[in-house]
Amino acid sequence: MKIAIAQLNFHIGNFEGNTEKIIQATREAKAAGADLICFSELAICGYPPRDFLEFDDFIHQADKAINKLAAEAQDIAIVVGGPRKNPVIEGKDLFNSAFFLADGEVKFIQNKTLLPTYDIFDEYRYFEPASEFGVVTYKGKRIALTVCEDIWNIGNENPLYTICPMDEMMPHQPDFMLNLSASPFSYKQADERKNVIKANTDRYNMPIFYVNHVGAQTELIFDGGSLVYSPDGRLFEELPYFEECIHYFDLDEVAKGRDDSGQQCSKIAKIHDALVLGVKDYFGKLGFKKTILGLSGGIDSALVAVLATRALGKENVRVLLMPSQFSSDHSVNDARELAENLGIQYDIIEIEKIYKQYENTLEPYFKDMPFNIAEENLQARSRGMLLMAFSNKFGHIVLNTTNKSEMAVGYGTLYGDLCGGLSVIGDVYKMEAFELARYMNKDGEVIPENIITKPPSAELRPNQFDTDSLPPYEELDQILFQYIEKRKGPKEIIAMGFDEKLVRRVLRLVNINEFKRYQTAPVLRVSPKAFGMGRRMPIVGKYLA
Amino acid sequence: MKIAIAQLNFHIGNFEGNTEKIIQATREAKAAGADLICFSELAICGYPPRDFLEFDDFIHQADKAINKLAAEAQDIAIVVGGPRKNPVIEGKDLFNSAFFLADGEVKFIQNKTLLPTYDIFDEYRYFEPASEFGVVTYKGKRIALTVCEDIWNIGNENPLYTICPMDEMMPHQPDFMLNLSASPFSYKQADERKNVIKANTDRYNMPIFYVNHVGAQTELIFDGGSLVYSPDGRLFEELPYFEECIHYFDLDEVAKGRDDSGQQCSKIAKIHDALVLGVKDYFGKLGFKKTILGLSGGIDSALVAVLATRALGKENVRVLLMPSQFSSDHSVNDARELAENLGIQYDIIEIEKIYKQYENTLEPYFKDMPFNIAEENLQARSRGMLLMAFSNKFGHIVLNTTNKSEMAVGYGTLYGDLCGGLSVIGDVYKMEAFELARYMNKDGEVIPENIITKPPSAELRPNQFDTDSLPPYEELDQILFQYIEKRKGPKEIIAMGFDEKLVRRVLRLVNINEFKRYQTAPVLRVSPKAFGMGRRMPIVGKYLA
Repeated sequence: MKIAIAQLNFHIGNFEGNTEKIIQATREAKAAGADLICFSELAICGYPPRDFLEFDDFIHQADKAINKLAAEAQDIAIVVGGPRKNPVIEGKDLFNSAFFLADGEVKFIQNKTLLPTYDIFDEYRYFEPASEFGVVTYKGKRIALTVCEDIWNIGNENPLYTICPMDEMMPHQPDFMLNLSASPFSYKQADERKNVIKANTDRYNMPIFYVNHVGAQTELIFDGGSLVYSPDGRLFEELPYFEECIHYFDLDEVAKGRDDSGQQCSKIAKIHDALVLGVKDYFGKLGFKKTILGLSGGIDSALVAVLATRALGKENVRVLLMPSQFSSDHSVNDARELAENLGIQYDIIEIEKIYKQYENTLEPYFKDMPFNIAEENLQARSRGMLLMAFSNKFGHIVLNTTNKSEMAVGYGTLYGDLCGGLSVIGDVYKMEAFELARYMNKDGEVIPENIITKPPSAELRPNQFDTDSLPPYEELDQILFQYIEKRKGPKEIIAMGFDEKLVRRVLRLVNINEFKRYQTAPVLRVSPKAFGMGRRMPIVGKYLA
Repeated sequence: MKIAIAQLNFHIGNFEGNTEKIIQATREAKAAGADLICFSELAICGYPPRDFLEFDDFIHQADKAINKLAAEAQDIAIVVGGPRKNPVIEGKDLFNSAFFLADGEVKFIQNKTLLPTYDIFDEYRYFEPASEFGVVTYKGKRIALTVCEDIWNIGNENPLYTICPMDEMMPHQPDFMLNLSASPFSYKQADERKNVIKANTDRYNMPIFYVNHVGAQTELIFDGGSLVYSPDGRLFEELPYFEECIHYFDLDEVAKGRDDSGQQCSKIAKIHDALVLGVKDYFGKLGFKKTILGLSGGIDSALVAVLATRALGKENVRVLLMPSQFSSDHSVNDARELAENLGIQYDIIEIEKIYKQYENTLEPYFKDMPFNIAEENLQARSRGMLLMAFSNKFGHIVLNTTNKSEMAVGYGTLYGDLCGGLSVIGDVYKMEAFELARYMNKDGEVIPENIITKPPSAELRPNQFDTDSLPPYEELDQILFQYIEKRKGPKEIIAMGFDEKLVRRVLRLVNINEFKRYQTAPVLRVSPKAFGMGRRMPIVGKYLA
């Protein structure tokens, strides 16, 4: 049996586009002699469709698409994920299903059992878990269908679920398993996936074909890296990361096994490629081409400029250099050098006159109150307004350049440097930002060395440095990581050797700045715990605040 | 048996404050001769604690608080809600529990079974459902404890769950039921609650004491309105809306029953009171006192000024009137009259010079491109910046004044009139805004008549009216209601008699403006379907867009 794995980029709610893409891939696979082609979870409607699932009309569109695909399943079987109405009145309205289409009809449906409802996942919001389990027989083979999380309840120390769907299917003696996934990227995810699938082969001793989605949907980036494992637990093949492809496998060959070491990528390389795809798809799926951003001469905006250029092409990236009276010469020079290295359009716009006009307008009210955060923020917001004006005039999307460390402690100005349609590096800590800059320069200097080595500064008052108000990033990032990724409390972090006062101050800053993060653009997720839909915090909470 | 219902305002994560409040109420009830006092769901930690629940430290604080309260339970029983570690390794880490504290110890615990995971609720994200059911015997009475949703699976046409916890408890022959709730306000909720509790008395024929939380937590407003029902299905008492109170009940009297008609409040009166509480608690729980907002002379900012004044006191409300060259005379006059009616501080700040300075700065880039949305937004953003400057200088929180109709179709400027820490009327449609204004004026004119009757205009270009770019609000609001609250698709809405082109345009506007709503302040929720945490939509989706 020849099996095609279609690792493709779907678009949420774009039934016409997704169906067309599935049909094209099916025809290609049929021409290549495949007996079966398998697509990813909820491929019909794109993942995650979120509350679109609550619209009957949306589910009806999905039904129509499945029927259209069934008609296409002649001399080839199509396995594809889609939502489906729960025919039983009790329980949630929908199932998250794997459809097996063959001989022009829907031959078999297996519903998803384990519904992730944590971090960025909300599946129990919509779906009823499966209570029936079977296999489908096709061309003499018994095939078990599982959907993403269904295979993740094995070999864990702390199992989230009290049922294991494959255990329920085993009495039907499946010959192999197809898993339809939409497993979002984090820099740890590819390794975890391999562990989980290996644990499944160890337990069930059969070939496993793991088909992942590729492509970004707003903040979530799906990295592909689909997997084929042999019954003896050896990796047979790992498909590429971050690109669409269709690969073919002979079932007998997979059953025999071979040694494949998979792809070896550094954490930073994966983050880099993920962010490029995240930017590219955000624009592509919204139908935009061009971006604008502010280049401060600092490392964060430099990273975003490079990522944007790699994602959209230099002809689609425009930057503004917006010095104030507090900007140092090197800021403008460094930013200009970067823009020239990238070959992108740049303009230098002084903000001093605008800032002064605000000062004059406010003078009757502020009188001789001392310079404070109000004046600092006026500068940041003047820049944000200029970027938004360009955006509105020319149809650019503004990219936000805030990093995760700043997002965490609220070191940024709402409606100022926190503006923009997409936060590109909001899940990248400052220390990782330095690594990313080095990685970008690995084949020759793109980001001027001075941008990487100079001490970080917001330049909103004379001789300001980040370390005036924040601890050194080496220390800050470690505390933040323990609190955000590891969910450690103050006592546990202090017990690791960090200064108590510092720990309490940092945790307090994180919690009291929830209101800023609430209003910040979606953040491209590259870590196991990003700000945004995967981290839901009360604003008025008084915990550690 | 004398039973005290404590309808109190808790604060998320404020263990010290919440515990202290529970102890004070318990002492008061004991002095009044109560045998038992019952508090609301998750009262220990405040509802909803959201991802704070993922911190072991947070759960540990909750445990400590329960133990402290148990020590206080001498000669009186305390029934209180709190999170609790699931001792079984399989399944979710926590239970959402009702603790029965008596004789200085934890006597009994009943976990919640039905975990709402829809709209604003995420309970299955954290909690494992109960699998054991019992009753607790105290002073000769067998008491069934249920938590909020546990009683909501009765008498529904479309039951969400496949189990009914009270059915499981009935074999233990309970004498009465205590329900610990945190049921958020919407203008329909009080009626639905009464229907549900009546359906429970019809089925179980026993007294039911329904104890609700009161107070606002960021966007969610809990309205109180706790209920006592007699076994024959008659309402015995409905506690007040929107205020803290402790009421006492003799169990024998409740068992006998009496006729009480409850509170008769109009939808608009309830919305009004909910919004006042929402603003008050947002400030109070964050530790702020003062607000600033822009008064345009239009109805939306007028409503917010009135609500803020009623919530915070006139001495804590400051408004800016920020006319441009496009503002009509009546705008400033109407706004001034309103400010004078309210007795709040107002200043008039012209934005023309700031706007001109932006124009001059941008002239080399925009050249002679025609005036468009870029220039309109510059005005809105100049105003936003001035408000934020005051906010930063004087420690005010800016209140956002956008209504639900505008939020829906994206008729507003990000970082401009969409700025602010809290959206006060973002869940109030424009037609409801008019009703609310009339309601505010019921005891004498607060909002000048002209503000209510003149045609709505953003005044961002000469002779602009909302109806230039939007359909009349009478029609728009109806289409939005069908799409947002009723989740009808285009075909269903068109079949109701609305123009097809208009329907498709409105639905498209709603969907393509998700990016704006993503960055807007939390919206005080007063309807069954508000923008924010209860409506989760993809930004890059292509459905109806």
